Amino acid sequence: MIRAGILGATGYAGVELVRLLSAHKQVTLTMLVSQSYQGMKISEVYPSLRSICDCICEGLDADKAADVCDVVFTALPHGASKEVIPALYEKGLTVIDLSGDFRYNDKEVYAKWYGQEHSSPELLEISVYGLPELHREEIKKTRLIGNPGCYTTCSIMGLAPLLANRAVETKNIIIDAKSGVSGAGRGLGIDYHFCECTENMKAYKIGTHRHTSEIEQELSLVAGEDITLSFTPHLVPMKRGILATIYANLAQPYTKDELIAMVKEYYKDEFFVRVYASGLPETNHVAGSNFVDIGLEVDSRLNRVIVVSAIDNLVKGAAGQAIQNMNLIFGIKETEGLDRAGLYL
Amino acid sequence: MIRAGILGATGYAGVELVRLLSAHKQVTLTMLVSQSYQGMKISEVYPSLRSICDCICEGLDADKAADVCDVVFTALPHGASKEVIPALYEKGLTVIDLSGDFRYNDKEVYAKWYGQEHSSPELLEISVYGLPELHREEIKKTRLIGNPGCYTTCSIMGLAPLLANRAVETKNIIIDAKSGVSGAGRGLGIDYHFCECTENMKAYKIGTHRHTSEIEQELSLVAGEDITLSFTPHLVPMKRGILATIYANLAQPYTKDELIAMVKEYYKDEFFVRVYASGLPETNHVAGSNFVDIGLEVDSRLNRVIVVSAIDNLVKGAAGQAIQNMNLIFGIKETEGLDRAGLYL
Amino acid sequence: MIRAGILGATGYAGVELVRLLSAHKQVTLTMLVSQSYQGMKISEVYPSLRSICDCICEGLDADKAADVCDVVFTALPHGASKEVIPALYEKGLTVIDLSGDFRYNDKEVYAKWYGQEHSSPELLEISVYGLPELHREEIKKTRLIGNPGCYTTCSIMGLAPLLANRAVETKNIIIDAKSGVSGAGRGLGIDYHFCECTENMKAYKIGTHRHTSEIEQELSLVAGEDITLSFTPHLVPMKRGILATIYANLAQPYTKDELIAMVKEYYKDEFFVRVYASGLPETNHVAGSNFVDIGLEVDSRLNRVIVVSAIDNLVKGAAGQAIQNMNLIFGIKETEGLDRAGLYL
Amino acid sequence: MIRAGILGATGYAGVELVRLLSAHKQVTLTMLVSQSYQGMKISEVYPSLRSICDCICEGLDADKAADVCDVVFTALPHGASKEVIPALYEKGLTVIDLSGDFRYNDKEVYAKWYGQEHSSPELLEISVYGLPELHREEIKKTRLIGNPGCYTTCSIMGLAPLLANRAVETKNIIIDAKSGVSGAGRGLGIDYHFCECTENMKAYKIGTHRHTSEIEQELSLVAGEDITLSFTPHLVPMKRGILATIYANLAQPYTKDELIAMVKEYYKDEFFVRVYASGLPETNHVAGSNFVDIGLEVDSRLNRVIVVSAIDNLVKGAAGQAIQNMNLIFGIKETEGLDRAGLYL
Repeated sequence: MIRAGILGATGYAGVELVRLLSAHKQVTLTMLVSQSYQGMKISEVYPSLRSICDCICEGLDADKAADVCDVVFTALPHGASKEVIPALYEKGLTVIDLSGDFRYNDKEVYAKWYGQEHSSPELLEISVYGLPELHREEIKKTRLIGNPGCYTTCSIMGLAPLLANRAVETKNIIIDAKSGVSGAGRGLGIDYHFCECTENMKAYKIGTHRHTSEIEQELSLVAGEDITLSFTPHLVPMKRGILATIYANLAQPYTKDELIAMVKEYYKDEFFVRVYASGLPETNHVAGSNFVDIGLEVDSRLNRVIVVSAIDNLVKGAAGQAIQNMNLIFGIKETEGLDRAGLYL
Repeated sequence: MIRAGILGATGYAGVELVRLLSAHKQVTLTMLVSQSYQGMKISEVYPSLRSICDCICEGLDADKAADVCDVVFTALPHGASKEVIPALYEKGLTVIDLSGDFRYNDKEVYAKWYGQEHSSPELLEISVYGLPELHREEIKKTRLIGNPGCYTTCSIMGLAPLLANRAVETKNIIIDAKSGVSGAGRGLGIDYHFCECTENMKAYKIGTHRHTSEIEQELSLVAGEDITLSFTPHLVPMKRGILATIYANLAQPYTKDELIAMVKEYYKDEFFVRVYASGLPETNHVAGSNFVDIGLEVDSRLNRVIVVSAIDNLVKGAAGQAIQNMNLIFGIKETEGLDRAGLYL
Repeated sequence: MIRAGILGATGYAGVELVRLLSAHKQVTLTMLVSQSYQGMKISEVYPSLRSICDCICEGLDADKAADVCDVVFTALPHGASKEVIPALYEKGLTVIDLSGDFRYNDKEVYAKWYGQEHSSPELLEISVYGLPELHREEIKKTRLIGNPGCYTTCSIMGLAPLLANRAVETKNIIIDAKSGVSGAGRGLGIDYHFCECTENMKAYKIGTHRHTSEIEQELSLVAGEDITLSFTPHLVPMKRGILATIYANLAQPYTKDELIAMVKEYYKDEFFVRVYASGLPETNHVAGSNFVDIGLEVDSRLNRVIVVSAIDNLVKGAAGQAIQNMNLIFGIKETEGLDRAGLYL
Repeated sequence: MIRAGILGATGYAGVELVRLLSAHKQVTLTMLVSQSYQGMKISEVYPSLRSICDCICEGLDADKAADVCDVVFTALPHGASKEVIPALYEKGLTVIDLSGDFRYNDKEVYAKWYGQEHSSPELLEISVYGLPELHREEIKKTRLIGNPGCYTTCSIMGLAPLLANRAVETKNIIIDAKSGVSGAGRGLGIDYHFCECTENMKAYKIGTHRHTSEIEQELSLVAGEDITLSFTPHLVPMKRGILATIYANLAQPYTKDELIAMVKEYYKDEFFVRVYASGLPETNHVAGSNFVDIGLEVDSRLNRVIVVSAIDNLVKGAAGQAIQNMNLIFGIKETEGLDRAGLYL
């Protein structure tokens, strides 16, 4: 059994890890760390976990973590992760970090988009970007994962096949993404008050959202050239789910069927990617599951492709992908603990 | 492996059965029947099931059912079930019926509340009311289950311990129950149009809802005397979940702690019942799971107890309970396929 | 023109006052007080008000209020109101207080349910409970209104006609009330985080909610005897709206039609009360309007009546009723500024 | 008083007309036509209207309409409008049509996007596109209005100032629009079932939605050259509101302030347009009102502008705009009946 610890266990990504790992046949949860709820059972904070996981939340103790864990998931705010991870990593733990702190190849890009110098640039060089569909072999060999962002996972996976095949121009790529509110986390703020969210939608951080840089990093690697693009996040009155609507000009005329075939081929061995020959993904197709659903339409009038991709931001966009990475690192079946249907309803 | 068929597989209870059974380690789905979607994959109707269950829906063929199934779940409209079940039962199949057709001990009660004569009164005598926490031993021995209603499960389980212990008066019992919209099924109707439901709530069928008779039947058995009570259902703008707020006058002064202890003792061996020593159940504590959560408060000013119970109407109120019954009948672990945490979010 | 000020203008009741008063033909808004948003335009806090009301929020200055206002609406937290109102009242202003501080006839009841002594018991004697349908003549003569609570308005108005006519027993009255989230105000709290509210419902403060005492005070007056009753509030995932489901045993057998006639007669001159001869109120029938909708069913099996009443908690349950009181005090048409249809959608 | 009739009064646009016109000081509602609810009071269909408008719905009688109405609003399905309007128009009535049937200058464009020949091409030449901010003077002189679509109003108004000033390139314009569910009308369909909509979002009709042609027609006029663009509609789980996120490449480098000034200047005399110097529109800023809110950001990294515009699809996107047109045609104040704040909550 893999002994797993979670830092930030009472946040939304943290509790999703608890939900999924408590059903994972090869994992035992040995340590739940929560500053806010130290001394309380996780099932007092989230009564859905009663009788399922009644572990007590504790404060952070890196020595103890090294003793009782094989892997630690860090679901902490951006910036906080990079302060605690070096100690954990040095003690020989495998660390899967859900923050933005270890997702970058270039510390300058991190500094620019996160507004602070990276305190462990040497670890940044070691860390692997944990998107298995793009970096599976590297992931298997590392002990430090920068687990991708939610918007990024959805956006990158929708575009990668077309860029890898040079089917689209690299200029004028636009990603219009919409997210449920859980993506903002459990912290309080007037923007997340029920009465301000429900029956409301909005765009935010236009042109400045940090995930832009992450998407550009990965798609530039795929395309073999520098890519800059528009990324606009929106908040939509629902809990889970991201939908990305992606616009790109075709490099030459393609039919929808040709592009679908291209995407299917690209992901042909991927259990978690479902490509739609007809119809389009919706967020309730993936809610509660680790799937990425991808569809597209060609607008031949404009010689443009519009890709639609959908994920559950808490699963494939956070906790599920983290577990997928853990499975790869520990050499167990990649889909273990992640192979159930989501909740359409 | 138990070979299972589902009649009415594309309704909301049906697809919840597919979701849960496709993850059940001792079950193979061998037959999905849907009149409306004959010839289509279930995963075309519910894309959340893609790669999980891609079975093709077919028309009803009782002979084939007998050949390929050990158990059949009938998730058909009330009235329709009783027409098809006799044939299935006679062929030796185990039948778990999710309609109201086989829940009654007395055909007159059925006739009164359902407005039609029962066409198979002899089967009504054989059938067992499938609430395992009350009828476990009978369930193990039957091949025909009348799986309880959603409101009923939630209401009966909240009141049974207090009535069994004669802690409350049998007059003036009031059950004020609130349900999410999935309880109404997938059929179209202006009442279930998104714009008419969202940001709206209402009471309906006051004093006339059929579940009243089911609750009275079971609670009369528990109490050992005839019980009549008020039951008022409400529609609330959410998908899953039932909350029952139950009012009863105390037979003598009790403290909250005494009553909590009584309820805990009553359900002491029940995995699926979680009793709250403090705090109260909410529907997101049980959403997606087979749990019944029960809490209560004593209003000593009025010598009254107010019990609050919560279930997921599609799981413990329908598909989950049906699987719990199947597990009992087939002699496998009662919690098999039902032991995961729900989705708080 | 009546010059009106609002204390607590940026809370949900406050901004509803701004919305309604900015369209009131005989009112000018002369002072908006908000501690949190001092110096900002109200329309920066609530952009829906841009071009409609661009007043700047200021700090509280009682002298200035006396200079520029004829009436002041105080929409402050309970307990805070009673600290500022004496000064305003002494300066000759008409004060309509939306908190619980001036709703009681008996300072002991206030002390018991609010957990603090009342600091101005002499004003408590002067203040009038601002439910026009019960206290219209007193309201016209006062300068200090304790504007009723939202749950209370809905509950009292549903029961008053039956109690006034001695049609129901005074024992075993149960009010099961459900509210949208705006009733909890704009303050932050994990309970009101979108992700914790949506797709969730719960009961809270069973037997201890302060509105219980207010309902009992008023219904005792109506009935001419002391009434104690069960009141249970619930939180439901919507913004606006309260639905009260009220259970009472009939004093003698009545038909539904007889009781409907009784309620219609009781409210025969009331514009804001709509009685349903058939069907039942739903919250979207009243959303955005000052109406109270009332329906009922008789359960002759149990000799019990179930009344359903619905209001918009921010209008008839707060701001609208406050304006209705102002209209009465200033001798203008009672429906002025309140006579528009609500938003069904 | 203007005597107004509504055809299709019980649809969502129709009832919004009833809500707004019943509060319009210079209008009397003289005729409500509804095939489905003939003989019923509109307030039985929509109880929110009780005591406000209790008119009885009737069948269509063009002669009677000519007798009792000065203006008729036709809120019928596309295709049905053009069958009844010629008769109404010939009788001298002013007709404001909310369908797509009279929005086009070119019958070929209609035929192409609506899949049918236009049966009254001669009226198509007479009809005026009812977007007052672009066509005010023509509107004043006509008796036949093609009232714009909801997506179109929101999209056109966000882009027109930039195109009129040649600030953006006409290639690579992308409009990613999101709508609440009321835009789909009151008709039944599984896509609009509460359980299928809530907690779900999706794109639909990519590259083929009819509003594309309407947007292109109007923006081509504004730009003085043929414009083709991508328009993608999305369904979001809320009732009211459209948010359009519009991407266009800048013709030359502009700052945000320069573009804001340009938009403000363009709409400087428009009451219903609110331009955001900072911050961005959200749908709850406009819900229930006739405002169009417009904000933008410049992404100087990409030399691209992203415009965000928001309307209430039922008001500025349908009924409100229709009334604005009526006001213009009848020479009364353009804002009459439309000058109230919306509901932020």
